[in-house]
Amino acid sequence: MIVILKSNPNPDQLQGLRNWILSKGVQIHESTGESHTILGLVGDTSKIDTDLISALDIVENVKRVQEPYKNANRKFHPEDTVIKVGNTQIGGGSLTIMAGPCSVESEEQIIEVAKAVKASGATMLRGGAFKPRTSPYSFQGLGEEGLRLLLLAKKETGLPVVTELMDASQLPLFEDVDVIQIGARNMQNFNLLKIVGAQDKPVMIKRGAANTYEELLMSAEYVMAQGNEKVILCERGIRTFETYTRNTLDIAAVPSLRTLTHLPIIIDPSHATGKAALVSTLAMSAVAAGADGLLIEVHNDPTKALCDGPQSIKPDAFDVLAKKMKALHGFMQDLEG
Amino acid sequence: MIVILKSNPNPDQLQGLRNWILSKGVQIHESTGESHTILGLVGDTSKIDTDLISALDIVENVKRVQEPYKNANRKFHPEDTVIKVGNTQIGGGSLTIMAGPCSVESEEQIIEVAKAVKASGATMLRGGAFKPRTSPYSFQGLGEEGLRLLLLAKKETGLPVVTELMDASQLPLFEDVDVIQIGARNMQNFNLLKIVGAQDKPVMIKRGAANTYEELLMSAEYVMAQGNEKVILCERGIRTFETYTRNTLDIAAVPSLRTLTHLPIIIDPSHATGKAALVSTLAMSAVAAGADGLLIEVHNDPTKALCDGPQSIKPDAFDVLAKKMKALHGFMQDLEG
Amino acid sequence: MIVILKSNPNPDQLQGLRNWILSKGVQIHESTGESHTILGLVGDTSKIDTDLISALDIVENVKRVQEPYKNANRKFHPEDTVIKVGNTQIGGGSLTIMAGPCSVESEEQIIEVAKAVKASGATMLRGGAFKPRTSPYSFQGLGEEGLRLLLLAKKETGLPVVTELMDASQLPLFEDVDVIQIGARNMQNFNLLKIVGAQDKPVMIKRGAANTYEELLMSAEYVMAQGNEKVILCERGIRTFETYTRNTLDIAAVPSLRTLTHLPIIIDPSHATGKAALVSTLAMSAVAAGADGLLIEVHNDPTKALCDGPQSIKPDAFDVLAKKMKALHGFMQDLEG
Amino acid sequence: MIVILKSNPNPDQLQGLRNWILSKGVQIHESTGESHTILGLVGDTSKIDTDLISALDIVENVKRVQEPYKNANRKFHPEDTVIKVGNTQIGGGSLTIMAGPCSVESEEQIIEVAKAVKASGATMLRGGAFKPRTSPYSFQGLGEEGLRLLLLAKKETGLPVVTELMDASQLPLFEDVDVIQIGARNMQNFNLLKIVGAQDKPVMIKRGAANTYEELLMSAEYVMAQGNEKVILCERGIRTFETYTRNTLDIAAVPSLRTLTHLPIIIDPSHATGKAALVSTLAMSAVAAGADGLLIEVHNDPTKALCDGPQSIKPDAFDVLAKKMKALHGFMQDLEG
Repeated sequence: MIVILKSNPNPDQLQGLRNWILSKGVQIHESTGESHTILGLVGDTSKIDTDLISALDIVENVKRVQEPYKNANRKFHPEDTVIKVGNTQIGGGSLTIMAGPCSVESEEQIIEVAKAVKASGATMLRGGAFKPRTSPYSFQGLGEEGLRLLLLAKKETGLPVVTELMDASQLPLFEDVDVIQIGARNMQNFNLLKIVGAQDKPVMIKRGAANTYEELLMSAEYVMAQGNEKVILCERGIRTFETYTRNTLDIAAVPSLRTLTHLPIIIDPSHATGKAALVSTLAMSAVAAGADGLLIEVHNDPTKALCDGPQSIKPDAFDVLAKKMKALHGFMQDLEG
Repeated sequence: MIVILKSNPNPDQLQGLRNWILSKGVQIHESTGESHTILGLVGDTSKIDTDLISALDIVENVKRVQEPYKNANRKFHPEDTVIKVGNTQIGGGSLTIMAGPCSVESEEQIIEVAKAVKASGATMLRGGAFKPRTSPYSFQGLGEEGLRLLLLAKKETGLPVVTELMDASQLPLFEDVDVIQIGARNMQNFNLLKIVGAQDKPVMIKRGAANTYEELLMSAEYVMAQGNEKVILCERGIRTFETYTRNTLDIAAVPSLRTLTHLPIIIDPSHATGKAALVSTLAMSAVAAGADGLLIEVHNDPTKALCDGPQSIKPDAFDVLAKKMKALHGFMQDLEG
Repeated sequence: MIVILKSNPNPDQLQGLRNWILSKGVQIHESTGESHTILGLVGDTSKIDTDLISALDIVENVKRVQEPYKNANRKFHPEDTVIKVGNTQIGGGSLTIMAGPCSVESEEQIIEVAKAVKASGATMLRGGAFKPRTSPYSFQGLGEEGLRLLLLAKKETGLPVVTELMDASQLPLFEDVDVIQIGARNMQNFNLLKIVGAQDKPVMIKRGAANTYEELLMSAEYVMAQGNEKVILCERGIRTFETYTRNTLDIAAVPSLRTLTHLPIIIDPSHATGKAALVSTLAMSAVAAGADGLLIEVHNDPTKALCDGPQSIKPDAFDVLAKKMKALHGFMQDLEG
Repeated sequence: MIVILKSNPNPDQLQGLRNWILSKGVQIHESTGESHTILGLVGDTSKIDTDLISALDIVENVKRVQEPYKNANRKFHPEDTVIKVGNTQIGGGSLTIMAGPCSVESEEQIIEVAKAVKASGATMLRGGAFKPRTSPYSFQGLGEEGLRLLLLAKKETGLPVVTELMDASQLPLFEDVDVIQIGARNMQNFNLLKIVGAQDKPVMIKRGAANTYEELLMSAEYVMAQGNEKVILCERGIRTFETYTRNTLDIAAVPSLRTLTHLPIIIDPSHATGKAALVSTLAMSAVAAGADGLLIEVHNDPTKALCDGPQSIKPDAFDVLAKKMKALHGFMQDLEG
């Protein structure tokens, strides 16, 4: 951490700052130039609150050199994290394919889609029971009943399931859920992060539409700091000025997060674009970028979808895509091999 | 609502769509041109899910004409909403000044600040007990004890208090709180919105850093749809590419929201900029824009602030500002006549 | 085009509007509902100025149904445009690899890089002679001398060259340049677009950092409206709130623009990220997304680069990447075939 | 400037870097910690290219402490710049009101508007002759004839005029223009900036829709580095995700730029919002924020405006606004006294 002081800092305040920093077990290297004095803080600065230092009258600017996250940081955990889920694993060179409808709508629908996506090669079943919707008048998901149907589909097909937890009160219903999803709108719902951090169950955190990689990793850190290291990251598009697509898929998140963290990285091309016609192309692009997996909306009859319809592909299109993704994944592994 | 069909739509699907729309109690006006057929939906379309229509194969595009919110919509409630809080009111031509520290830190601190801001003319006391922090290693607020101290300061000064509710589990502690604040990161925590919608207490919703006016109003609609009409909106800066300020204060939110809704509008220049030096200028600008009030961070010793220090002004600066804001508010009222 | 009128429009103004629209050779379909009257404009509306209609007192909103571009629109030109450049072609299933240094620095440098990238499989040589730099104190390119050296490298290697034109006054020097590049900062320099539209030479337009697909296509339209149909589009990252990368590569631009237009699409992963370590991964991702080509910065000694150094890869890394891109391109063609 | 080295930097490369820095006349303060070595560069670093240093293999990160602009920097020129234009001045406590139509359309129109805005208190006349339009099919301005009419209106009213220069070739026509406007889309047209920098005439630079304060100041620096110190800055809204307004007016630009630079700051609420109904409120807000002036679109018959109609107010609304702005400006001066 580097602290840049204003010109002619008050000597007492400067001494106070020096003492406070030293009390945190951090060393100080001081450089005095013509116009500025710079303090270089050396040691473990991850728990020093930069805002606190910035607030001082004598300080012009504070810049971090080290990342503010530790558990999620690849520097301290060079090996990729691999997470076992049922008979499958996430990370470690495998290609996870999470597929299913945006919302669970009926027993018939979820069972049919689950069987179809399993036959096509999906490794996990996704489906929403509790749905965050912008409007209070939109369909909010089947709730507890939706979860029951999703778990029925798990039983029928053997596919592990991933579904969104919107509120701590829903947690008792999640016992047989394999991966808890934290939605983009809850990425900084810190109480919820702490609660899932106290579970012994994988957690997939979706990046907020206006959150940086660092903030996403800090949210992972919230979960990990509670003892739950089974965290999966999911990029699902960020909000920009472009309106043709619902969001802008930030494909650079794959190699960037790969550098910064050891956690697995999933790409959601369905929410990222909001257009079914773009999903397959972006899914292939994500596989080539080295993503650990994809989260893809599949619906047996998109014209009946109760939410997020425009971004769902049909089972036959998914079947083609799944085969192509696997072929590409194999090709990439040979190429990089 | 306008539905633009693709060229040569399948006639059966089109008839199905017509029937479905009519079943919602909405009329259809159809225009057929050379390349496109357009359906004009006339009636109360606020409960029609545009995503559902967009998902149809025969549809190219759906555009809303009416706003998707009703309770918050000025068209249906032309009169400004005025909310009574203690001896003061929010909206209706008065200037609400909410002031206090980012975090409650100690009894001495909060009492001292509360007395100071009251003497300067603040009409409400703000102070954080539960603090949303990006890092799990940063100070998270004093919690229950912080709330106790805040209410002590209310008792000492008579100032009504506003403070953030981060989770439904904290609600029992909020009995004597006057206004519940929903933070920007929880603006789309829909479960929390429903819960505060079921209370008989004013709720101030802060606009999310990447949320539109319409989304903010839909969040207000969540609260109002539960029966709680005492909603206050707060603009606190949006996330843009500019990094000199923490966020970009969207001052056009004042006249824009004024047009769209009857709810009171508060501006938070402290969070919007993250720089104490800019707070006074932006506060004056907000008064001139016709905001119903300001939310201003004031700290008795910014060098000791445990969070968000760089954006707090000191009581003496606040005293000058409060007087100037009141003078300007009076001047503007005379000018507008 | 759809014109939504305000409630109870003035009948004379409405009649005036109807007459004006009809005078443009466009038909009107009118739908009158309870709260709004909607005019559906049918015919060629591409030359109707929506701003002009929006300005009318009786109009609430105007929405386009048709795209405002014609020459660049795939609807009117379903076949992909293929552009011949020297012995190579851009578009039509081939993979164009434009490689070279950000700036031409010396004869030795440009000849060495040109030979290296040709040996690795590049199909075109890129190199900047006139450089747009944010600071007047940064190196601005070798200018005329740089162009001379670039053309020398073309002669030595036979590679066609692409280089940026910043100002019409430089045009006489571009006679032997194969593709004129219009930089992102000049994407809406409409005078420059008209001037290159009057040339008989391919033009590659880079998307501005804050411009939409539609605006990019309107800039292409400026060139094409002058008679020059040889336009190439280049996505080079957009400006967002994320600061880890210099810009955010919008990979969805490939399938989105593919749908909207028949023009070839090039991806520039070097400028998009500003980090050499991310270039290869994103280039592979772009090939999988179906881009017609890549623009890649290659420098023989990045430590000496006079500009944009951090995003250049070295010839040996480019050699590995070029081979992998070709292999992937072939694989994708077989897969899609 | 601070250079953060990677762990275990190559000693030869490090020595090379040290020598290169010293050769620029800059001193080095070196701090070696456990994981990082930090070089503090002390002296005039404004002409050191940070990209060049970032490109080195041994460097992890480079951060500027000093601003990269000098002529525009308040630190080196503490006094506000005041620019004389005709009988009026820009900056120095006066309130400049530039008003007029988006486009000059006819002699009658521009003379009528000019007389009206003068009578209401405008200090300068604005009007576009050369218009940057997104579509090649939209009205592009009357060009040379428009300029002639604008200068006729200047003669009639005595109001100094400000109008946009889109291309160097138009410069000979600008002899009698009082202030040359560089449009937002040309903010980084560096050749054009150099050309106006070589004139002895005030230049108003509009901030690009996606440009930072620093980039705006670097564009001012381009002009000033050529010897022309009469630069005026104009904030006209930035591009964000919000679509209700055309752009988002960044009101914090006023106090922020006031801190960073000594140049006058003008606010353009018309382009910032694209909605006439919001212009007056935002203009008042800008006066309260301390802007040196406003740029306001006024049209005698908005229903006939050939471009940008929705954001123009009529002369009678401008008359009310101008009086209110002056009253507010006087009030603020007394208050700040």
